[in-house]
Amino acid sequence: MTLVWLPFTGPDEVRRRLGDLPPGLEVDYYGAGGEDVPASVDEVELYVLPYMQPGAKELMARMPRLRVVQTLTAGVDDVVPHVPDGVTLCNAAGVHDASTAELAVALMLASGRHLDVFARQQAESRWHSINGTALADQRVLIFGHGRIGQAIEARLAGFEVASITRVARRARDEPLVHSSDELLDLLAETDVLVIIAPLTPETDRVIGAEALSRLPDGALVVNVARGRLVDTDALLAETSSGRLRAALDVTDPEPLPADHPLWRVPDVLISPHVGGASSAFLPRADRLIKAQLARYAAGEPLINQVSTAR
Amino acid sequence: MTLVWLPFTGPDEVRRRLGDLPPGLEVDYYGAGGEDVPASVDEVELYVLPYMQPGAKELMARMPRLRVVQTLTAGVDDVVPHVPDGVTLCNAAGVHDASTAELAVALMLASGRHLDVFARQQAESRWHSINGTALADQRVLIFGHGRIGQAIEARLAGFEVASITRVARRARDEPLVHSSDELLDLLAETDVLVIIAPLTPETDRVIGAEALSRLPDGALVVNVARGRLVDTDALLAETSSGRLRAALDVTDPEPLPADHPLWRVPDVLISPHVGGASSAFLPRADRLIKAQLARYAAGEPLINQVSTAR
Repeated sequence: MTLVWLPFTGPDEVRRRLGDLPPGLEVDYYGAGGEDVPASVDEVELYVLPYMQPGAKELMARMPRLRVVQTLTAGVDDVVPHVPDGVTLCNAAGVHDASTAELAVALMLASGRHLDVFARQQAESRWHSINGTALADQRVLIFGHGRIGQAIEARLAGFEVASITRVARRARDEPLVHSSDELLDLLAETDVLVIIAPLTPETDRVIGAEALSRLPDGALVVNVARGRLVDTDALLAETSSGRLRAALDVTDPEPLPADHPLWRVPDVLISPHVGGASSAFLPRADRLIKAQLARYAAGEPLINQVSTAR
Repeated sequence: MTLVWLPFTGPDEVRRRLGDLPPGLEVDYYGAGGEDVPASVDEVELYVLPYMQPGAKELMARMPRLRVVQTLTAGVDDVVPHVPDGVTLCNAAGVHDASTAELAVALMLASGRHLDVFARQQAESRWHSINGTALADQRVLIFGHGRIGQAIEARLAGFEVASITRVARRARDEPLVHSSDELLDLLAETDVLVIIAPLTPETDRVIGAEALSRLPDGALVVNVARGRLVDTDALLAETSSGRLRAALDVTDPEPLPADHPLWRVPDVLISPHVGGASSAFLPRADRLIKAQLARYAAGEPLINQVSTAR
């Protein structure tokens, strides 16, 4: 028998969410609330890492028979250092696409149409209309053209935007994707900059004072990737002056400290890193887990394998 | 020469917004700020009615040569009584579609993903994530399938919704539109009810206690039509109990009085009737004005003609 750890409460949840499991798999449960480490820690072969549970990654060091770790996050920068040699790491690419992409569009729309201002007015029972900036007619640049970037583009299809420009690490054709070398030059023609590129040494604070200065007055910066892609001080300067607007699901540092001035900038909208935190997550996570367990049980190659080379 | 009144400041604005006008048209200016009535009031043939300017409608009675009045609103119920016999009335159907449709989607997303709560948390510098209800996987019912209803549907195309059901006054095929007789039965299978039907005697408070009771627990009611399509007391009861959610750009009464309990219901999001109030308005209004002036100068039939029969 092959032992799998799932971040579920027990067999009932397995049956409800995954249906029947393939023969040959045995399941133990860790990470659905309690933090007690099951005695089977030295037997587990396939470990579905609980979503955002403190201490869960460190447990890999106590798993002598571990062969596969499956995350429920797309980004694995914080997991990689904990993966023992010889263990296959699989991420959750695809699981958060719908949730994160729709949050990106939600942030664009809410910022442009002042829904944050209206929410605060509502708390004061105040009816006062403000003319908004429509998403229609805007020139949108999507920086990062992986699965989530493409999911954002799909969602923009019906909104009558003036143009969508794609930028990724490497240029491609059909659809046309510009190389990030061209990013600075493209920003002058950008009304909405959506950041969904991975955080790497090359993208670390790539949206700094120089990049922001290229954006036209009134442009909107949306970040649903990682806070570190943006130089927070530079963004603070450009938004505090009222020249640029921002809608951020991620910040640097994160969480944003209570005394950080970014909280108080009028044209900055902040959501607390909830890109993946929606009802879209569970059904898609379940489909991935189910598919991986079937492949593992059948001896087929797993999908979503990530290099752990450092 | 044919005299046209435009709600512009002068020839520079005409050139910037409309380009060159067709030959044979002369322009005078009324309604871009000042309310002085030009001396040419007894010469004007085509009157582009200023958007929401007090006293502008009443001027028609002082225009002996008036032949056409062009509004910048889609609804003309308040204009019709002022249109002299024999004068052609044209509305601005289409001009507000993009703006209103994107606000409808903005309200769905903002409510589901708690952007109103995060805006209020931001005022307290508070970083606290809350799991949201994604638009993905939801069953959406669009009640009203005119131009704006169709524009809403177009915008939903990329969001992985489970289904879109259309309801209008009369049933149609291709695409399938259900008759409003079927509305009550369809609500039981609806997660997001979007209201964009016109206000008529038949739709007055059609979304009342009975209709709301058919919606499943946790369903969202979005109204971007007129407040009077919904029975406010019934909606207040169903949202106050926490059973339903709402996101409303229009209310009954409107503006919502400061002491109205709807302001304070946690899962109710209110924007102050800003469906058409965005940057999408001007370019679309300009395209309509330009097209109508060209048709008028060429002696072609105008578009967007509305019956003034009372």
